[in-house]
Amino acid sequence: MYRPQWPKIDFSVISHLFRWLLLAVPVALAAGSFVAFFLWSLDHVTLLRYRYSWLLFLLPLAGVAIYFLYKWAGKNAEAGNNLIMDEIHEPGGGVPLRMAPLVLITTLLTHVTGGSAGREGTAVQIGGSLAGLAGRWFKLNREDTRILLMMGMAAGFGAVFGTPLTGAVFALEVLFIGRMNYRALLPCLMASLLADITCSAWGITHTHYAITFRDTVQPVLRFLPFNWWLLLKVVMAGACFGLTSYFFAELSHAIKRYSNRKIAYKWLIPVVGGIIIIVLCFLLGSTDYLGLGVTGARPDSITIVSCFRAGGADTFSWYWKLLFTAITLGMGFKGGEVTPLFFMGAALGNTLAVFTHAPVDLMAGLGFIAVFAGATNTPLACTLMGVELFGGEYILYYAVACFTAYYFSGQSGIYLSQRLQSSKT
Amino acid sequence: MYRPQWPKIDFSVISHLFRWLLLAVPVALAAGSFVAFFLWSLDHVTLLRYRYSWLLFLLPLAGVAIYFLYKWAGKNAEAGNNLIMDEIHEPGGGVPLRMAPLVLITTLLTHVTGGSAGREGTAVQIGGSLAGLAGRWFKLNREDTRILLMMGMAAGFGAVFGTPLTGAVFALEVLFIGRMNYRALLPCLMASLLADITCSAWGITHTHYAITFRDTVQPVLRFLPFNWWLLLKVVMAGACFGLTSYFFAELSHAIKRYSNRKIAYKWLIPVVGGIIIIVLCFLLGSTDYLGLGVTGARPDSITIVSCFRAGGADTFSWYWKLLFTAITLGMGFKGGEVTPLFFMGAALGNTLAVFTHAPVDLMAGLGFIAVFAGATNTPLACTLMGVELFGGEYILYYAVACFTAYYFSGQSGIYLSQRLQSSKT
Repeated sequence: MYRPQWPKIDFSVISHLFRWLLLAVPVALAAGSFVAFFLWSLDHVTLLRYRYSWLLFLLPLAGVAIYFLYKWAGKNAEAGNNLIMDEIHEPGGGVPLRMAPLVLITTLLTHVTGGSAGREGTAVQIGGSLAGLAGRWFKLNREDTRILLMMGMAAGFGAVFGTPLTGAVFALEVLFIGRMNYRALLPCLMASLLADITCSAWGITHTHYAITFRDTVQPVLRFLPFNWWLLLKVVMAGACFGLTSYFFAELSHAIKRYSNRKIAYKWLIPVVGGIIIIVLCFLLGSTDYLGLGVTGARPDSITIVSCFRAGGADTFSWYWKLLFTAITLGMGFKGGEVTPLFFMGAALGNTLAVFTHAPVDLMAGLGFIAVFAGATNTPLACTLMGVELFGGEYILYYAVACFTAYYFSGQSGIYLSQRLQSSKT
Repeated sequence: MYRPQWPKIDFSVISHLFRWLLLAVPVALAAGSFVAFFLWSLDHVTLLRYRYSWLLFLLPLAGVAIYFLYKWAGKNAEAGNNLIMDEIHEPGGGVPLRMAPLVLITTLLTHVTGGSAGREGTAVQIGGSLAGLAGRWFKLNREDTRILLMMGMAAGFGAVFGTPLTGAVFALEVLFIGRMNYRALLPCLMASLLADITCSAWGITHTHYAITFRDTVQPVLRFLPFNWWLLLKVVMAGACFGLTSYFFAELSHAIKRYSNRKIAYKWLIPVVGGIIIIVLCFLLGSTDYLGLGVTGARPDSITIVSCFRAGGADTFSWYWKLLFTAITLGMGFKGGEVTPLFFMGAALGNTLAVFTHAPVDLMAGLGFIAVFAGATNTPLACTLMGVELFGGEYILYYAVACFTAYYFSGQSGIYLSQRLQSSKT
């Protein structure tokens, strides 16, 4: 006689998730706390630079210090994010613990003397190196070590920006161009969320960006309940954002290659880079493109926040930030690329909004996430970041801008260890 | 002399996107209009059933009509969504045009006589069969036909629920369990967005669901600015939602297998199914679990909308909807599974909210998207759907509920042609 097969519940999923939760807790607590300390120091170091503007002249010296720190104590840690991604792709020598303190100190050195850099690279490396340590402690096998490293990346990213969902999806999405694997979906979200909570528990708060524009929908064709003009502007802007990502990635790589080829003494590279930055500041008569760019030395400084207001950025602010950052990171200083990418995007969005008569705060917000989406090839993480940072009302525009930027940013990005899985065209 | 390689802009991306836009327009216009007509008829057919409640007694007869329609005119069209997914995985005989009118007529027959079914299957099949036709007209090669079929799915899904971003990501995510490929990222968004605009242009509006709960954050541990209790409830609820998806998928498949084995005359299967549904209605003394379930025959009917209110669902409403739908779709009636999954999820969310003293509208909204996420293995599309339908404020809870449901819904789902790419544990 035929007996219907009744469904059996597979309880292995519970033990699977519980195991990863147990592994996520120490990694997230450590990474969240370390990132909290990093953000706290970063704030103080930035205030220090605002107060003592002569610190800028120490930039070449800081570059030399960073160079020798990595030369003497760095081993393979200088590869940074790329090393972590390589270790996830093909586990090798592991991610060394020294990566965390080294990147913390060198990032602070970069910021206190005015290098134009970010913080996500630092946070991701802190998370990755702590995860690497945990993997060795718990004697995980290769496959589990890969997942734990992804969780470390997610934890660092989620904590540093206060965007846990984005952190988790970013860690899944960034490894390959054109494909996402769900193997570590929930473990990454656990790590990212716990790290974000830990970081907040230390009293760290994140900058609030607001898109106050309210779309009143005045359709061109009355029967179409849709703001066609705005959509068209967002598509065009998305293409510009993607080209900016492409330009930034290529310029950084080119500066790195070129200076390594032309300058025989490697410790001279950051010295030259530091001097170029100082000269650029004097030529421009502005220090607004130094440092993180979230806050400014003066109330009328051009910052990421000011880009959300009409008149809050000059026409070429995006380009100057791009140039300052490509020189800083291409010539041996440390930090992340993402916050400067936010700046370039928001400033370019501001400029495009002026030219196209589009709402400034919306365009700045779109640039903020879309230049990042193009440069790291993570269109979905950045769409989610839009929701986590600015609210969900314009999610469709976030997606249109990020997806378009993804297509226009070329077949590579800022992370050379990212693997091309599926051609964009 | 070394010359730096200056970046070259790859203009092929523009022609690539323009080509897909040209292909998206006819598919989206046709699919959007067809779906608009379908939604309009579905509304009228449902109102007809509310007015003439004796139509329920014709359910067995409608089942026989559906059986013979597919037997005489259906060819391979009865495989429905699974056929479209198979054709995307491995292009074979193509998706026949007859699929669109057949699924439209049989879905309306199912709904007018009170079968418990949805609409997304119908819309996706409409989109897929129109895309198949376009592919043959434009003589596309295999690879392009696959992308066009995905665009058809995205168009149908985006238009039927008014959620264009969800439609696009759903079409990318549903093909494999555990992996998403970005090959058709922007083409799918174009198709989905244009189809949604087309559908709206015909005057179709979508039901509005609101989560009005505002989290005031009363942390258990004062230094943790986070609502731990609520998060814990959401995790537990996510597991329940996933198990419900699993139970529904297994029950549908089991009913289909069992009835095909036990009932010799195939046309008798829907007759028996129809009679069971009628008997169940009399036993329960309620017709609330018939049809789509978005609106009700009486003001105090249990509907998806009422599930967002305290007292809007009975403790076992989710189970009855599950049973009604599994019988309807497992025994030969037509329509989608998704709207009934919304119902099950919202009703279960309502029940769980009562038991755990959690906010009813939030839990109903989470169930709405998470049971769907588990049954179709599309956790990211469903997280985005939460934002598109309910707003972005609780995106983290959407993700936690959907990701957890994804882990607890087993290694398959309602679509048997979905391929397991990466084990969940």
